[in-house]
Amino acid sequence: MQGTPQPTSPPDAYTPTDRTVPTRSADRASYDKELVHAILDEGYVCHLGFVRDGAPVVLPTLYGRVGELLYVHGSTGSRPLRMAGQAGPGLPVCLTVTHVDGLVLARSAFHHSINYRSVVVHGTAHQVTDPQEKRTALDALVDHVVAGRAADSRPANTKELAATAVLRIDLAEVSAKLRTGGVNDEPEDLALPHWAGVVPVARRYGAPLADPDLAPGTELPDYLRAL
Amino acid sequence: MQGTPQPTSPPDAYTPTDRTVPTRSADRASYDKELVHAILDEGYVCHLGFVRDGAPVVLPTLYGRVGELLYVHGSTGSRPLRMAGQAGPGLPVCLTVTHVDGLVLARSAFHHSINYRSVVVHGTAHQVTDPQEKRTALDALVDHVVAGRAADSRPANTKELAATAVLRIDLAEVSAKLRTGGVNDEPEDLALPHWAGVVPVARRYGAPLADPDLAPGTELPDYLRAL
Repeated sequence: MQGTPQPTSPPDAYTPTDRTVPTRSADRASYDKELVHAILDEGYVCHLGFVRDGAPVVLPTLYGRVGELLYVHGSTGSRPLRMAGQAGPGLPVCLTVTHVDGLVLARSAFHHSINYRSVVVHGTAHQVTDPQEKRTALDALVDHVVAGRAADSRPANTKELAATAVLRIDLAEVSAKLRTGGVNDEPEDLALPHWAGVVPVARRYGAPLADPDLAPGTELPDYLRAL
Repeated sequence: MQGTPQPTSPPDAYTPTDRTVPTRSADRASYDKELVHAILDEGYVCHLGFVRDGAPVVLPTLYGRVGELLYVHGSTGSRPLRMAGQAGPGLPVCLTVTHVDGLVLARSAFHHSINYRSVVVHGTAHQVTDPQEKRTALDALVDHVVAGRAADSRPANTKELAATAVLRIDLAEVSAKLRTGGVNDEPEDLALPHWAGVVPVARRYGAPLADPDLAPGTELPDYLRAL
């Protein structure tokens, strides 16, 4: 292929691979880095998949993004963290983040759908060994839950840091998939008497419930009022 | 072991297995059928894991429960549905449903957590071939999205039914895991000046957006007003 101009991905997009090109609804897939980052940054719970004894395991867990790296954490004794190990080939994982944006209620049962934005990351998880990277990763996890929170909490001490394992996954083999818009009923169904449309879905935060033992004079911080 | 009384699970609980007993926080695990059903019935999007070429894949998809069976669906051309096949050994899967109920903001970064309820189902997915079971499964999927909706939409016709593949997974190897309650800071951290407590998180539905082509006189049904 020498001398042949190769199709190149723009630097602001992930390169599609066999695993990240969907078998259907390919028009809903995107490799745009900015879009992928935005979907990841809006969430804090992912579903982490790995293979144990040949069978899949999917567990919900917190995550954080730092540039083109994703981090998940857990007790040093937890299964995926032990399986990933501190050296060696690492643990093949698939990390998926999904936001539901709406219920798409069509006149036909068949065309019912969900408006959503999701990111699927394929990769290999390795345990982080550098203490500074570990701290950065844990700050990112806390700041995903509430932006600004890491700076307003006691950082992990040496003992806590030693009890926490952190896995790193490169953002390299990545795709976003999304559905937006309204119902797609068949033309011959439009006259049916069923209500059709979209019901928006979003995350709602309730009023913060303060711990009964707050130090006297502790006020609700602005970053929580903003939720 | 003949003649030895065996510990038996009560009929209203799933039998724990090596895969459903967590390696940590075992006190957060439950095998109670009523609790598992309640968590599953509150949701409609699961994360379905399977193994492809030795690597895990985790995809968000709709699901429905009918008694002790779970169903997911997709195009007959979609990957997991093709892999499960209509006969043979089926596809090993892990199906996980997670509800986030609160952000647990401790004074220490280490004790930050999430209040959540999740269900993890291990099993083998088989394609449904019986047309009546397929219809029942699809009704369940639609009714998970909005209770009462299946009866208020045009059922799938023969062509749509043929284009849709449905996978069945037995609810047998199942566990729930949940965290509730407040922050668990270390006693020596209680005097720190950081706000601590729980921020409740819930799903919020917006005002339904009607399709512009609704048949004249079509009213918003009560089951949508109730959202």
